[in-house]
Amino acid sequence: MICILKPGVTKDKQEQLIKWLKSQNLGVHISEGETHCVLGLIGDTSKVDGDLLESLEIVEAVRRVSEPYKTCSRQFHPDKSVIDVSGVRVGEGLTVIAGPCSVESEEQIITVAKEIKKAGADILRGGAFKPRTSPYSFQGLKGEGLKLLSLAKKETGLPIVTELMDIDHIDLFDDVDIIQIGARNMQNYELLKELGHVDKPILLKRGLANTIEELLMSAEYIMAGGNERVILCERGIRTFERATRNTLDLSIIPVLREKTHLPIIIDPSHATGKANLVPPMALAAVAAGTDGVMVEVHNDPLHALCDGAQSLKPEQFADLARRMMIIREVVS
Amino acid sequence: MICILKPGVTKDKQEQLIKWLKSQNLGVHISEGETHCVLGLIGDTSKVDGDLLESLEIVEAVRRVSEPYKTCSRQFHPDKSVIDVSGVRVGEGLTVIAGPCSVESEEQIITVAKEIKKAGADILRGGAFKPRTSPYSFQGLKGEGLKLLSLAKKETGLPIVTELMDIDHIDLFDDVDIIQIGARNMQNYELLKELGHVDKPILLKRGLANTIEELLMSAEYIMAGGNERVILCERGIRTFERATRNTLDLSIIPVLREKTHLPIIIDPSHATGKANLVPPMALAAVAAGTDGVMVEVHNDPLHALCDGAQSLKPEQFADLARRMMIIREVVS
Amino acid sequence: MICILKPGVTKDKQEQLIKWLKSQNLGVHISEGETHCVLGLIGDTSKVDGDLLESLEIVEAVRRVSEPYKTCSRQFHPDKSVIDVSGVRVGEGLTVIAGPCSVESEEQIITVAKEIKKAGADILRGGAFKPRTSPYSFQGLKGEGLKLLSLAKKETGLPIVTELMDIDHIDLFDDVDIIQIGARNMQNYELLKELGHVDKPILLKRGLANTIEELLMSAEYIMAGGNERVILCERGIRTFERATRNTLDLSIIPVLREKTHLPIIIDPSHATGKANLVPPMALAAVAAGTDGVMVEVHNDPLHALCDGAQSLKPEQFADLARRMMIIREVVS
Amino acid sequence: MICILKPGVTKDKQEQLIKWLKSQNLGVHISEGETHCVLGLIGDTSKVDGDLLESLEIVEAVRRVSEPYKTCSRQFHPDKSVIDVSGVRVGEGLTVIAGPCSVESEEQIITVAKEIKKAGADILRGGAFKPRTSPYSFQGLKGEGLKLLSLAKKETGLPIVTELMDIDHIDLFDDVDIIQIGARNMQNYELLKELGHVDKPILLKRGLANTIEELLMSAEYIMAGGNERVILCERGIRTFERATRNTLDLSIIPVLREKTHLPIIIDPSHATGKANLVPPMALAAVAAGTDGVMVEVHNDPLHALCDGAQSLKPEQFADLARRMMIIREVVS
Repeated sequence: MICILKPGVTKDKQEQLIKWLKSQNLGVHISEGETHCVLGLIGDTSKVDGDLLESLEIVEAVRRVSEPYKTCSRQFHPDKSVIDVSGVRVGEGLTVIAGPCSVESEEQIITVAKEIKKAGADILRGGAFKPRTSPYSFQGLKGEGLKLLSLAKKETGLPIVTELMDIDHIDLFDDVDIIQIGARNMQNYELLKELGHVDKPILLKRGLANTIEELLMSAEYIMAGGNERVILCERGIRTFERATRNTLDLSIIPVLREKTHLPIIIDPSHATGKANLVPPMALAAVAAGTDGVMVEVHNDPLHALCDGAQSLKPEQFADLARRMMIIREVVS
Repeated sequence: MICILKPGVTKDKQEQLIKWLKSQNLGVHISEGETHCVLGLIGDTSKVDGDLLESLEIVEAVRRVSEPYKTCSRQFHPDKSVIDVSGVRVGEGLTVIAGPCSVESEEQIITVAKEIKKAGADILRGGAFKPRTSPYSFQGLKGEGLKLLSLAKKETGLPIVTELMDIDHIDLFDDVDIIQIGARNMQNYELLKELGHVDKPILLKRGLANTIEELLMSAEYIMAGGNERVILCERGIRTFERATRNTLDLSIIPVLREKTHLPIIIDPSHATGKANLVPPMALAAVAAGTDGVMVEVHNDPLHALCDGAQSLKPEQFADLARRMMIIREVVS
Repeated sequence: MICILKPGVTKDKQEQLIKWLKSQNLGVHISEGETHCVLGLIGDTSKVDGDLLESLEIVEAVRRVSEPYKTCSRQFHPDKSVIDVSGVRVGEGLTVIAGPCSVESEEQIITVAKEIKKAGADILRGGAFKPRTSPYSFQGLKGEGLKLLSLAKKETGLPIVTELMDIDHIDLFDDVDIIQIGARNMQNYELLKELGHVDKPILLKRGLANTIEELLMSAEYIMAGGNERVILCERGIRTFERATRNTLDLSIIPVLREKTHLPIIIDPSHATGKANLVPPMALAAVAAGTDGVMVEVHNDPLHALCDGAQSLKPEQFADLARRMMIIREVVS
Repeated sequence: MICILKPGVTKDKQEQLIKWLKSQNLGVHISEGETHCVLGLIGDTSKVDGDLLESLEIVEAVRRVSEPYKTCSRQFHPDKSVIDVSGVRVGEGLTVIAGPCSVESEEQIITVAKEIKKAGADILRGGAFKPRTSPYSFQGLKGEGLKLLSLAKKETGLPIVTELMDIDHIDLFDDVDIIQIGARNMQNYELLKELGHVDKPILLKRGLANTIEELLMSAEYIMAGGNERVILCERGIRTFERATRNTLDLSIIPVLREKTHLPIIIDPSHATGKANLVPPMALAAVAAGTDGVMVEVHNDPLHALCDGAQSLKPEQFADLARRMMIIREVVS
């Protein structure tokens, strides 16, 4: 951590600050520049409140040198992580996740599961507990939805991923292969802490207004608890643009590749909100080097109970899957 | 709900759509314009998926006519709500909430409580459970912190407000007068639903990237469960500007005044992140007609365990409180 | 245009409004819903001030039905436009534009021009007039830079594109093949109007905080003046994320494809600000169906006078160009 | 400027970098930390490309120590500037600017000018050249509008402020007291440079997506040319919130007070876009310590040719002016 003093600070005040910093068990390295004096703080600076330091009258600016995350950092774990999900190796090749936004009926989920499997998908998605902006909207089939997902898994052999909104529901998730944490819960720290003790991979979605660094800090919450099987997921950020529901930030792919060893999945369906925008964005994600893509597929989008507007029909998905595989070949 | 068809849609396709809409138990009112045909949907449109409708090939745009919230709307409840908090009437006059970011020790919280009471504050704030971006940061004194808040309440008579992060902690909150829900949990719907059954006022903070409408929808979650004592709180939104931690959106005050009967509180400390910016923003909030202000006060900001940079010293707070009261007089 | 009245408006006030609307030469079509009365305005609504209408006491909301742009709309010109740039057909296949941020010397620009030509680029870019945030930064070689670009054009046969910041410089641009308008001037309407009378293609960059609709409206300014050869360019928008300089909004590609017949070029260099992020984003743009890519290439990034951090070396560019062509094959 | 090297950089590479830095005429001060080596660069770093430095393989991060602006900085000019506008002293007390969005007719501008003068306004505003998103919207009365403003000035004695969009129009601005530069031209550097040679005060509006630092850099462009009479103006920034047209960032007032000696004016009319939000936001600005407020007033908002929705009627303005004066008394 580096602390830059204002020009013209008296020796007296400077020494007072240094004394206080040392009392916090920090080493202090002084460097006098032409106009500014810079203090390099050495030791465990993770507990230093940089904002507080910066608010002091004699301090001009404070800069962190090291990144605030550890376990998920590529510095500490140079090889890319591959996360085994019941035999599917996420982080190796391209993982394709597909399925409806909400589980609605046995017929629906089994039809879709079979279709996506035929088209080459690796994992089945489907919402049982649904976070909805309005308390008056359909909130998902809940426990019943999880049972239907299990049926589809038995029928097709596809591992399943579905969203958990409350740790009290965890007992219902026994047969689930990956637990999804939605964008709205990305900084629900109590939930993240609990997930640190769960023996399942976690798909952690980036919050609508969260930076890449905050996403990594939330992964760190889970990993600090002992569960290192975290898969990151970009699903669009909130910007001023309204032509799409959110703005899909694909540059997160190469940025994360540098910073972390964790795999990254792109969800173009929630990001764009419109089915016709999904294929170009999915192909773009593959070209940019993503580890996986998660796409909404519904056998009857017109009658979907949730987010039908952004769902592909099975035949559209099959075509997309085929093209994604070709691009994957080209970029790898 | 209004559904605008694309120009040149065939009668056939138009009738097919109208048939489908009627099968959803909606009345349809057709209005032929010069270039566009507009369908007015009549009945309970709250379950219609507007995005899905808009994704249909023949539809150009879909617009909701009525607002998606009900209980919190000023249309259904024209008088401003006044929420009684152990004798303090929030929504009537100016309510001043003050206290440290975190409860740290008996001496600290009681000193601060006495100081703010002397200066005219109505309610004591103090964090016991702290949401922190990093799992390695100080997470609050938890149960111990709540006990210290109770002590301070006994000592001064000030009602207390503190943050709840998990419904499982609710038993510890018996003596708490207002439960605060932080920005990161504004859309933690499972938690909001539980709060609908709690018999205490809720201070609901706006999420960093949430619209005013979404804030009202989250209030609606709580109210739909039966707890109508919701107090809204603005604490800054995330924008591109970095000179302040967040951007305090004071226009929320007159906007909410039109839309809802619920009271609104402004938190300039978290919004700006810097103590010297707090007084001007607090005064501005009062001038804009806020129902209350929540300010961080610490007896020793330099040694605060959390957010010391944004805390006022008691004497600074006393001066601010005095000036807020004068401006309140002028604007009311 | 649709005007939704508040519930419970008296017949009297309603008729008063309708009378006023008719006095503006508008037809009014009345549709009574269950709770709301909706007025459909028929005729030339392009001069109606929707915000004003919405501010009236009895009006709840106003919605435009038709898009505010015309000449650039795909509705009025269903075929994609192909813009001929001295033989290069922008809008047909993939156009690759490359070159240094700034023209610095004869040796530099000719070396780079030859290298990019060898690698398959179609057009040479290079800044002569440079918009810089600071008045103290290098502002470009100006007229001298344009002469060097001409030399490079003569040497390689590549058409050239360079930025115009002031219409008074237009005489110096005789030999320029495409005039670039930078993001900061996207809404410099006086300049756009002048460009309507210029007989050269215009590359119009999206402003940092401008919506896709505003980009089209600025294109409309140029086209309304008579110059219909406009090429649109996405170069990143400003969001809260700081891991990249800006956030590249690739979903603009399929969105524009629906709305306009004009070609779209993606500039990943300015969007990301870092050379290592450029290749994945360029490949992603091609996979999403862009008409072209504009990439910064410098023979000696370490000594570039401007934006060296985001420049590829010629051999990196050659490798990227090769991979872009393969992906283009796959998606077309 | 500080350059932080990655951990584990070899002595060899480190020395190579230092050699290169010294060849750029910089002194280098080396400070070895526990994990990182930090280089302090001494001398004229204003020409160092920080992004380029940061892109080098061995560099982790680069931080500027000094601010990039000079003439407008409070460090170089500790006293607040007071700018004389034909006798009105902007920066001393509260300056009230009012008038219609557009000048429309002699009767309109003279009626409004008299009304606002009676209510206590100091300066008359009115647009003659209007920047409009659509080329098909009313673009202002131009030269004719300027003549009408002069008439109103003669009639009332009020100095006038109006927007300049192109330096070629400057001859028409002889009788104008303050030249306004609109948000869309804040980074039209060619125009800013020309304004450096104009002998009139400039009212510089913050761009929709520009940081406070960029606003100061644009002021610096004007001041570097010799014209130091720059007045800054906040008129709302673009965020995700749509309940208001833009988000008025009032924290700019105390932030600018620290950074610059230039006066700051708040424009709540363009920021909110709705007349009923203007008075609370204007009062808030005064409470936060602004040097002035600029408010749209129209004698007949319903028939205004531009932005009628956000205009106050003269009697509403008179009431607001009275209340602003009282709050000004309280805060000063």
